Amino acid sequence: MTEDFYCDEVLSGKTKVNKVFETENVLAYYHTKPFWPVHIVAIPKRHISSFITLEESDNELLMELMGVIQKVAKMVTEKHGACRIITNLGEYQDSKHLHWHIVSGEQMR
Amino acid sequence: MTEDFYCDEVLSGKTKVNKVFETENVLAYYHTKPFWPVHIVAIPKRHISSFITLEESDNELLMELMGVIQKVAKMVTEKHGACRIITNLGEYQDSKHLHWHIVSGEQMR
Repeated sequence: MTEDFYCDEVLSGKTKVNKVFETENVLAYYHTKPFWPVHIVAIPKRHISSFITLEESDNELLMELMGVIQKVAKMVTEKHGACRIITNLGEYQDSKHLHWHIVSGEQMR
Repeated sequence: MTEDFYCDEVLSGKTKVNKVFETENVLAYYHTKPFWPVHIVAIPKRHISSFITLEESDNELLMELMGVIQKVAKMVTEKHGACRIITNLGEYQDSKHLHWHIVSGEQMR
């Protein structure tokens, strides 16, 4: 397993993904191995390690990312009635590329 | 139970809370009935129903909120090695005032 699945597999195009929403600097797509019945991931296209390593100079990108997350979360909540937005840090963060989970339904694994 | 615990109890001062970090428009404090061993909540002081109802005119407030969450999450991750940042929507959202959970450890209930 690569250290950065997002850069190495998704953003490189090596692993094809089912896109939900895309802007110039942000991509949201259906998780390739979902943990929830609805599992969408939103990532910046530029490498940023985690929510903690975001710097003030990334503010515009963070706003673009939160805007995409909001659109996706609206869509999921309208369709499924409920939604959770999550990001993990430290030992809880698997791939060291900032990513937000937008999920709905009972966790499957 | 009030519909908006944050406005009615916390921001009104009726329920005293243990503050973690505060700015002009944002408050982070230890959850009064924690679901995790570390459970901090970050809220805007102005009433906003949820992450979904944030409008473009709230962008500055959203940045202030994300800045506070980042500071708290850094602190928790440094101390406990791991941290999760969560917000709930629709049926998953208990109190209808935008709030983010910054948590660490095994969920207790």
